[in-house]
Order: sequence, then structure tokens, then C-alpha cells
Amino acid sequence: MKKLINGVDEVIADALIGLQAAHPELRVDHANRVVFRGDAPHQGKVGVISGGGSGHEPLHGGFVGFGMLDAACAGEIFTSPTPDQMMAATTGVDAGAGVLHIVKNYTGDVMNFDMAAEMAAAESGVTVETVVVDDDVAVQDSLYTAGRRGVGLTVLLEKIVGAAAESGRDLAAVAQVARDVNASGRSMGVALTSCTVPAAGKPTFDLPDDQMEVGIGIHGEPGRHRVPLAPAREVAQMLAEPVLADLDFTQAPAIVMLNGMGATPLLELYLMYGEVARILQAAGVEVARNLVGNYITSLDMAGCSLTVLRATDDMLQLWDAPVSTPGLRWGM
Amino acid sequence: MKKLINGVDEVIADALIGLQAAHPELRVDHANRVVFRGDAPHQGKVGVISGGGSGHEPLHGGFVGFGMLDAACAGEIFTSPTPDQMMAATTGVDAGAGVLHIVKNYTGDVMNFDMAAEMAAAESGVTVETVVVDDDVAVQDSLYTAGRRGVGLTVLLEKIVGAAAESGRDLAAVAQVARDVNASGRSMGVALTSCTVPAAGKPTFDLPDDQMEVGIGIHGEPGRHRVPLAPAREVAQMLAEPVLADLDFTQAPAIVMLNGMGATPLLELYLMYGEVARILQAAGVEVARNLVGNYITSLDMAGCSLTVLRATDDMLQLWDAPVSTPGLRWGM
Repeated sequence: MKKLINGVDEVIADALIGLQAAHPELRVDHANRVVFRGDAPHQGKVGVISGGGSGHEPLHGGFVGFGMLDAACAGEIFTSPTPDQMMAATTGVDAGAGVLHIVKNYTGDVMNFDMAAEMAAAESGVTVETVVVDDDVAVQDSLYTAGRRGVGLTVLLEKIVGAAAESGRDLAAVAQVARDVNASGRSMGVALTSCTVPAAGKPTFDLPDDQMEVGIGIHGEPGRHRVPLAPAREVAQMLAEPVLADLDFTQAPAIVMLNGMGATPLLELYLMYGEVARILQAAGVEVARNLVGNYITSLDMAGCSLTVLRATDDMLQLWDAPVSTPGLRWGM
Repeated sequence: MKKLINGVDEVIADALIGLQAAHPELRVDHANRVVFRGDAPHQGKVGVISGGGSGHEPLHGGFVGFGMLDAACAGEIFTSPTPDQMMAATTGVDAGAGVLHIVKNYTGDVMNFDMAAEMAAAESGVTVETVVVDDDVAVQDSLYTAGRRGVGLTVLLEKIVGAAAESGRDLAAVAQVARDVNASGRSMGVALTSCTVPAAGKPTFDLPDDQMEVGIGIHGEPGRHRVPLAPAREVAQMLAEPVLADLDFTQAPAIVMLNGMGATPLLELYLMYGEVARILQAAGVEVARNLVGNYITSLDMAGCSLTVLRATDDMLQLWDAPVSTPGLRWGM
């Protein structure tokens, strides 16, 4: 295992020190491992928080800032944060208008966020709404999930929902936007290599030199099937087909993300985006906005994922609204 | 070799198709493999172009746009673009105020940009100034260079010089800013793994599982020495010490970049930034601005580099000026 770390037990604590040093506009609660907007809470504004296992950077801590998240909880690598962390984030961002929890659909995250929501209501009187993201069309259930996994759509959802909260909408309206986005987006991923969790010290799975894993999750959990390595245009087809088969994307403009899993060069991501764009155009999908790059990663896994969101006019306006976070920034 | 490509001969052409699809605000000249700002040339504005071998994305094509480059030439992977490409970029952005060539110090690039500058003057009457970037403190000469190599400082220089041109300064003034930045910045890199050039099909060099290469270049060319893998805090010291020994950074605020080589997760880059920030503070360096992420890469190499620029007030203002490119965006 070759990693730029001090020790396997210090990875998250050390990375949060670096995040704070690089971004003084954020406030890191090192004891609770929560990344806050430096100016949270905002009187009258709905708080939007998320969190999950670490190893998916910039998600979630890199999406804290104006127009996106108010706070994010960092768990150990690929391990849910605790209810105490989520409680600290929830109470830390509440300004009387309630808090939305954005939860990727993994059993541990769902359970812990549920518990945190109950604690926040009972102990601090905070009203919490929850949206569970489950956009991965690859598999119905998985090692860590009942139902579909939450993957790339989380990035688009955090941007759009964050803008809705920033614009002053109330908790019910913000939660409705979140549910609408979740209902309108789908994702699919492929891995060329495994990732290596520092504490494990070796690759999570073995993938022969001539094979790739189609339908991979973001923790190295198995996908749909292993197939021989294929040209990019065939890989793009393997990603796009199940997404397009699952939902009709021809009736509204789409927001498309071609996301790297962590170790795939940007050159290849742009190449893949070109292939995907061609397929979407042929299928009658109008791409209104796109993102190409590393936004929800799986440590040092090589591979990529495709996310397509069928966007309403409202979602497009919220997408275009100013955002200022370490991982996404425009309009300011 | 596991890569998301169609064939080793089509990588650059395919990636440029994807870049164009993702960024309709740019204009890609596919025949010449030049990425232009969609609105170039700008009457009265000094044109700023760069280019070099591909494989370092987002550098250079990802830095084309408002406030940065007017055009970038994409060579084959790790291979200089041709004088014809540079000539097309130069004449394409010239609007009467002349053109600055930003050239990383590699023998092929320097020779070809020289030839293009002569051609542009002789055939089209374009006034060209050139700045050669040579910020790498690792080695004096290298496989591909006489003198120091041009590496990470190129990113900061393109941002600052692009802003100077955008603000309406004339060619002599823009070129002077470029030379001042080059004189005031230093870089040093480390690799944990080799990269794999598609056409070669295998790693450029062998690096044993328990070793890293200190002072690596951006093409996998050898560095200073191989040493056993070390904790991040010691790696940070190996990067910072030679940079700080080469120039006094205590007399002015610094712009610092902790850059990933392509396959290193953002989690590790932030961790490394934390270690570097601590060392710089102890050394009396005031970090005024920073960048953490993948900005000048070496395909799928794991590792990182440190760049420190001693910034004048003018450079800081130019740094903060609005920029809108695929790879860097703020203020708009």
C-alpha cells in the first residue's frame, strides 16, 4: 500500500487539519469531525447537512459553503458517522427553520441519521426532514444496502437543494426539491481497479488485468458483472444504457455528470464524456449542463460513473445559482 | 494497462471531442489540436497562449477561458506540440496587441515555440514575447531539459499573467509579470508510482512497493533519489525543505499549491497540505492563498508536488481577479 498518510488511524483527523488550513472560511469541529460553514448557523435559513463514510472526497466536506451544505459529518473511511456527529452538525446549523438531512442509502447511514433526527427533535427541539438518495441503477440490493445505493446524484442534489435553502425556501419546500431530484436522477459506475482502504492495507477486491467491474459501488462492493476490458465507446454504452432504460430522459433538459472514481486522469474523463454525450444525443437527451471531474470518489479506484438528472426549470435555476465551496464554485 | 480509451492513437483527438462537448464556451480546432476561448481574439487585448505535451490535464487546455489563457496547444502525450500548432494558436488569438508564449522548460517545447514565434513574426507580423518557466528545484538538468524543468508554477503563472492581460496591460508589461512570477516561484514533487503512457502500454519506470521517487518530473523522468516510503509529515519535509532553501519566502505573502499527480485521492492531498502548511508556518512563511487538487498531472501517477510563489501585492490582486475556465473558476 502506497499512500500519503502518517498512520492508518490518523487519516481522517489529519485530512481535516489540512482542509481547515486550506479553507479558513470553513470551521472544522475536530472533536466531532464535522465541517461547518464558517458563518453557520444562518438566522431563518433551513440548515442542510450531509455526511457519510470518508474516502469519497470532495463529497461531502468539500461541498460545505455558500449555496450548498451548511455542515458535513466525516465518518471513518467507508464507515457511517455516528449519531453524535450528526447531532452536533444538526444542532450546529439549526437557526429555527429546521434542518434537512441528505442521506445516501446505506444501512448504517440511514440508521444513524434516523437516530440523530430523533435525538435532535427530542433533546433540542429541532425539526428534521430527511431525504434518502438511491440513484444507482446497477443493483437492487447490495452488501451495504437495502434497495438501491446512493451515489453520484448526491452531488447534484446537494448543489440544487443547497441553492433552494439559500434562496429562503422553508423546510417542507426544500425537502420537496430534494425528493424531486432523487426521483429524477439515475447513476451507473464502472471500475478498472479496486481501491485500497488504508486500515486494510490491501485492495478491497481482485480484478484481473484484463477485466473491469460494471455496476461498481463507491466502496468497492460488487457490481452487476465482470467483463473484459473494452474500448471507451463500449464502456460509455454500458453506463448509459441502464440509466436510459430506467427513466425517460427525453422530455426535459438534463444535467449530466461524468465522475472520476479517484485515480482516473482527467484526460480519460473528458474522453469518456465525449462518448457519453454522443450516446445521449442519439437517444434524444438534451444535455443542458454538465460536470466532468472527480466529485464523488472511491479513494484510489480507477473508473468512472455517469449520472443523469432530468431537470425542471426550477432545478436548472437552482443549479445555476452561485455556489462557493472547495469542490464546486461559480457565480461568486 | 487499464485505461478508458478507444485506442492509443486516438486518445488526444477523442479527449478534445469530449472537452468541446463539455465546454461549448470553448472552441476546439480539431485539425490543429488547439483549444481557443470561444470569443478569441479580443480586440486590443494581449493574447496569452501556452501548450505542451498532453497528459498533464487540466493543464493547459483546461485553463483556457476568461482571465487565463486565450488558447492552448495539445501535443501527443508527453510530446511537444508542433510549431504549426503554435502558429495557429498565435495567429488565432492575436488582435494587434501581440501574443505571450508561456513555455515550460523542456527542450522540444522551447525549440518549437521559438520556431513558431519566428514564423508568426515573419509570416503574419505578430509580435511575440516568450517566458520560459523553470521552477523545479529537484534537478539542474534532466532527460528532457537543459536547466531546471517547468512544472507547477506554470499553473499559478497562467492565472496571474492571464489576469494581467485581461486587465488591458500591454505586451511588455504582461511579459514582465510573467518573468517576475517565474523568478519568484519554486516547486518540488514526489511520486509513489509511475505513470503509464498509453502508447507504451506499461509503466514508464519501476518503483518498488516500498520506495518513492523524490524530485520526480511530470513525465516520470528521474528525480533526486529513491527513498523508502515515509509518513506524510516526512514527505512534506522532503518537498518543502529544498523549496525553502532555494529562495527566501519569508519577506512577502505566498501563494501555495499542493498539487496531485493524477491518481492520488483528494483526501491525501488535503492531508499533505496540512503537513506543508505547518512546515511553512514554522519557517515564517505567510500563506496568503492556496490551491489543493489536481492541476498539473502526470497521467495516472500517484504522488504530489508543492509549489510556493513569493507574491507581490500586484500578483495577489491578479490572482484574486475573476477567472472562468474548466480547471479554475472564481469571481464569476
